[in-house]
Amino acid sequence: MGNVGRWQPDSRGRLQEAALVLFAERGFDQTTAAEIAARAGLTERTFFRHFADKREVLFGGSDLLKDRIVSGVSGAPASDGPLDAVARGLDAAAAMLGQFRRDLSRKRQAVISANPELRERELAKIADYAAAVAAVLRDRDVGEPQATIAAEAGMTLLRVALERWGSAYDDRDLTTTMRDTITELRAVAVAVDG
Amino acid sequence: MGNVGRWQPDSRGRLQEAALVLFAERGFDQTTAAEIAARAGLTERTFFRHFADKREVLFGGSDLLKDRIVSGVSGAPASDGPLDAVARGLDAAAAMLGQFRRDLSRKRQAVISANPELRERELAKIADYAAAVAAVLRDRDVGEPQATIAAEAGMTLLRVALERWGSAYDDRDLTTTMRDTITELRAVAVAVDG
Repeated sequence: MGNVGRWQPDSRGRLQEAALVLFAERGFDQTTAAEIAARAGLTERTFFRHFADKREVLFGGSDLLKDRIVSGVSGAPASDGPLDAVARGLDAAAAMLGQFRRDLSRKRQAVISANPELRERELAKIADYAAAVAAVLRDRDVGEPQATIAAEAGMTLLRVALERWGSAYDDRDLTTTMRDTITELRAVAVAVDG
Repeated sequence: MGNVGRWQPDSRGRLQEAALVLFAERGFDQTTAAEIAARAGLTERTFFRHFADKREVLFGGSDLLKDRIVSGVSGAPASDGPLDAVARGLDAAAAMLGQFRRDLSRKRQAVISANPELRERELAKIADYAAAVAAVLRDRDVGEPQATIAAEAGMTLLRVALERWGSAYDDRDLTTTMRDTITELRAVAVAVDG
């Protein structure tokens, strides 16, 4: 590949960490790409080699995450019920997201929660995952509205599980938290005859 | 009450209808309060007697809706399970929202969907309902994470039911659609052993 100058294998990770620390300290809008690069001990050019803009630091993994979720659902055995199949997609999501450092994941969520534009973008991403999952379920011959309900409920569980995992009082790994969240929904959904 | 001039009992409804028609035609950002008033055959002053700003035409009922949902949940019999109690809140929501003209409700949803800032506001409102419902469930001695999961799942169902009711191919009343959506979640949530 020739000489890539000061490029280092870990530049991307260092930029992400520097960005999340600065976003959390100063706010997203008050942080520039140049400042992120400086904090990481890298040049602005290096920043833009890895990210199109500072928003991509927060959302750069979302296409991959969507692919993983969709693959998880579409690879479910035919005998799976709709939420069983969605649960396989959530397992795949947990396997990917659970690799991130929990403290950085928590910072990411805090940064997004503090900014209406970022919240909207995050929720739009999750709505997009839900639409993709519903489409996969329909391909599996799940009818409507079941497909949409299972997909939307699943993405709600993803959101709740990520919040629990990011919170200080939940020390388990993301896969365990995710599965537990699904089990709790199943328990909660049972009708009680009063 | 004395002379209230040109005020008419139906001014508020006329302003709402005019606003939704204009928002749908021109976009929310391109519509002014003066234009809404003119379309309704009323003065701008009358508009501001009913609404603080044009956003309130879309969101003015949300505090009342939250109260209705919360009252529905807190009034549920002690024997209700978490989702049973949430379902009573959703019934109360359907009773209130189902009184609106469906064509205007559909216009409202289309206007909100087309505008990121309005989408964010709508989702923030729904997140606020979910937090309030979770608090009521905890008061009913539902533990965490069950309370949050039941509340979040319930608000997801509210959103899905409103979309279904607003869609052209669903002719049933909102209460029926809402109850059906809850029943479908219960059915979808059952684990199938593959």
